[in-house]
Amino acid sequence: MSAAPLRLGLAGLGTVGIGVVKILDREAALIAARAGRPVTITAVSARDRSRNRDADLSGFAWETDPVALALREDVDVFVEVMGGSEGAAKAATEAALAAGKPVVTANKALLAHHGQALAELAEAKGTTIRFEAAVAGGIPVIKALTEGLAGNRIKRVMGVMNGTCNYILTRMQAAGLPYETVFEEARQLGYLEADPNLDVGGIDAGHKLSLLAAIAFGTRVAFDAVELEGIGNVSIDDIRLADEMGYRIKLLGVAQMTGRGLEQRMTPCLVPTDSPFGPLMGGTNMVVLEGDSVGQIVLRGPGAGQGPTASAVMGDVIDLARGFHVPTFGLPAAQLAQAVPALAATPAPYYLRMTLLDKPGALAKIATCLGEAGVSIDQMRQINQKGDQDDDAIVLIVTHKAAPSDIADALSRFAATGVLVGAPVAIRIEEV
Amino acid sequence: MSAAPLRLGLAGLGTVGIGVVKILDREAALIAARAGRPVTITAVSARDRSRNRDADLSGFAWETDPVALALREDVDVFVEVMGGSEGAAKAATEAALAAGKPVVTANKALLAHHGQALAELAEAKGTTIRFEAAVAGGIPVIKALTEGLAGNRIKRVMGVMNGTCNYILTRMQAAGLPYETVFEEARQLGYLEADPNLDVGGIDAGHKLSLLAAIAFGTRVAFDAVELEGIGNVSIDDIRLADEMGYRIKLLGVAQMTGRGLEQRMTPCLVPTDSPFGPLMGGTNMVVLEGDSVGQIVLRGPGAGQGPTASAVMGDVIDLARGFHVPTFGLPAAQLAQAVPALAATPAPYYLRMTLLDKPGALAKIATCLGEAGVSIDQMRQINQKGDQDDDAIVLIVTHKAAPSDIADALSRFAATGVLVGAPVAIRIEEV
Repeated sequence: MSAAPLRLGLAGLGTVGIGVVKILDREAALIAARAGRPVTITAVSARDRSRNRDADLSGFAWETDPVALALREDVDVFVEVMGGSEGAAKAATEAALAAGKPVVTANKALLAHHGQALAELAEAKGTTIRFEAAVAGGIPVIKALTEGLAGNRIKRVMGVMNGTCNYILTRMQAAGLPYETVFEEARQLGYLEADPNLDVGGIDAGHKLSLLAAIAFGTRVAFDAVELEGIGNVSIDDIRLADEMGYRIKLLGVAQMTGRGLEQRMTPCLVPTDSPFGPLMGGTNMVVLEGDSVGQIVLRGPGAGQGPTASAVMGDVIDLARGFHVPTFGLPAAQLAQAVPALAATPAPYYLRMTLLDKPGALAKIATCLGEAGVSIDQMRQINQKGDQDDDAIVLIVTHKAAPSDIADALSRFAATGVLVGAPVAIRIEEV
Repeated sequence: MSAAPLRLGLAGLGTVGIGVVKILDREAALIAARAGRPVTITAVSARDRSRNRDADLSGFAWETDPVALALREDVDVFVEVMGGSEGAAKAATEAALAAGKPVVTANKALLAHHGQALAELAEAKGTTIRFEAAVAGGIPVIKALTEGLAGNRIKRVMGVMNGTCNYILTRMQAAGLPYETVFEEARQLGYLEADPNLDVGGIDAGHKLSLLAAIAFGTRVAFDAVELEGIGNVSIDDIRLADEMGYRIKLLGVAQMTGRGLEQRMTPCLVPTDSPFGPLMGGTNMVVLEGDSVGQIVLRGPGAGQGPTASAVMGDVIDLARGFHVPTFGLPAAQLAQAVPALAATPAPYYLRMTLLDKPGALAKIATCLGEAGVSIDQMRQINQKGDQDDDAIVLIVTHKAAPSDIADALSRFAATGVLVGAPVAIRIEEV
């Protein structure tokens, strides 16, 4: 092997950073053969040098400042696995790009908030940012979308991309436990971010969706335009009742370009149990890519963890070692269009659950409200309450396709009837 | 767009070739933006110029000889979608490579038989062969394996990669029909190759597996070492009985590197119904890639057809337009090792079905044979024959993991007992 080594500066020695160290330690020869040149780490940085880490770091120079790391003469590629959308990660990424060095990052928050500016900086300096590890862990979905399916006009991108949320939802279903209990389990298992709202509020998954949408539709990253709803209001009742009707509840991301603009949603949805998303259990991620020529491609794999995330980082690094250069979001940054956000989601069937007072004509009133709102009924079921102490009835309705505004109209009409106990639940059914 | 266009010579105007013409016709601007330069077809070739085709070809020069097409000065990339492992496809591919031009091909047979020589020729001339369209249709699996997972030591590759076989097997199951009936249906639907044995004999899928194995394990393509068994002996009885026990029967490709050498099998296998392969219906393909860091990645999508295959061709073309260059099988051809074929498959559980005469002690004799062969029993079920005209009994056995040679030993011991009616069935259960 006579080619010059590709020298990495590794910023961040948490789970992912140490994963990268381990892969390069274990498979240096294999990676050199595949990359056509050796790949080495020359220097590292992390907040706390004294912390005991599960890898031998003695061969690497140490920098306390990641900006200094990025600017070292013996660093060709800056690998940013620190995290955080601001501060040191942003400053060091900017420094590397400004010096014309490519950046490999796992940082979805950074790109969701500053992707356009960073992509422009990279291009101005003749370099690029690669971020396979930022979306869906070990699944090579950025590569599939940006390169493998580059001959397609993308129709829709969908994904279950937060393993913690999928763990919570599937554990609720499997064990019949309420959200609060499983949330607490997940916290004790260390599955939750320090700010749990990043996970259960859908923010982390929303970051990822906004990056996929930018590539898919050639638009500037527009995280602020993602319709976000977390899983905190998903009840075990709905999980159980949906299951009986042939559906599962997922925190599902959907991005599609419509005549009304770009639609980006990260919200709890019902999906058919026999769809690709149906059997997806625990922390596994899944992304569905739909193109005009290829049809539907489904990708599934581990969404987090040391090995999978480091695998994604190394895929990007080896591409760079092989000399591959693609614009950050697949198109030159100047050509990325400002997305016009769709004001409302595409019509879809909805699942409605409500409790009705035992009053004559209650159900008829509900049906009338739906009709007045222009929502037609596909299925309706009435379920007797357990215990039967009162005579309230649970009513489940699956509507035909309806505009979200018509569903909202129906819900406000329900409230005016006076026959409802509590608030009705409405969850979109995404057709996969 | 000021960059020079990438000019394609398109050899073959069948389904796939016309698909490529249509994509470039419909999405020229999008592809130019993504590729960083226009992509155009300058010249085409096909056997029959007079045939009516579903696309406007008037803007392309016509060559009757694909070798002449490959050598044209106004062709930068030779796109070979003619098919056939010998003859014109091979000659034209060689001519293009010898002239230092990259080749994009959908031709699995050509590469399965001549992949090493062609890869060596490509490298000697400083160019490469890309073949995403040759394996699993529209699924970008070559890219995922060669690039996305390049940081992994690959442990195992599995795939359902012949849509016709999966159509036949799943249609048998859904309709309860015997193989012969569904085979005839498939023929009339035009799903079968002119030589149906390419499909149902497992040869086409075996070609694809041998290409994946070469990339996964850094070995020379060794199609001749693939253990091949078609689906012609899969009975509706076994499909039904396996289903009752929680399994589906698939024509499953498995490649793995073991201490005993490289194992490559394309054979009917039982897979758990709740595994990723379980719900795979009809012509859809699925590939599972297992790496030491990433764990298990599952890719699913259409395995054939105009749009999906042309999508794969265009992915390769756009990579070339972007200047990407990877060795044909991911490693320099000279570094690909001669694979030592494993003489026997890794031990696995087996499904055994046999019919026993109504003789005292018949079942005990079978159990004794298994014990003597060193095969232990995980489950055993006896099923009464419908109609009950005779008292023969069907016995189903699922073994614990056993070496294939021990299963063969048990089967020959069964024959010697004299208690079997007809031949027993033994099908490997692949743990996914």
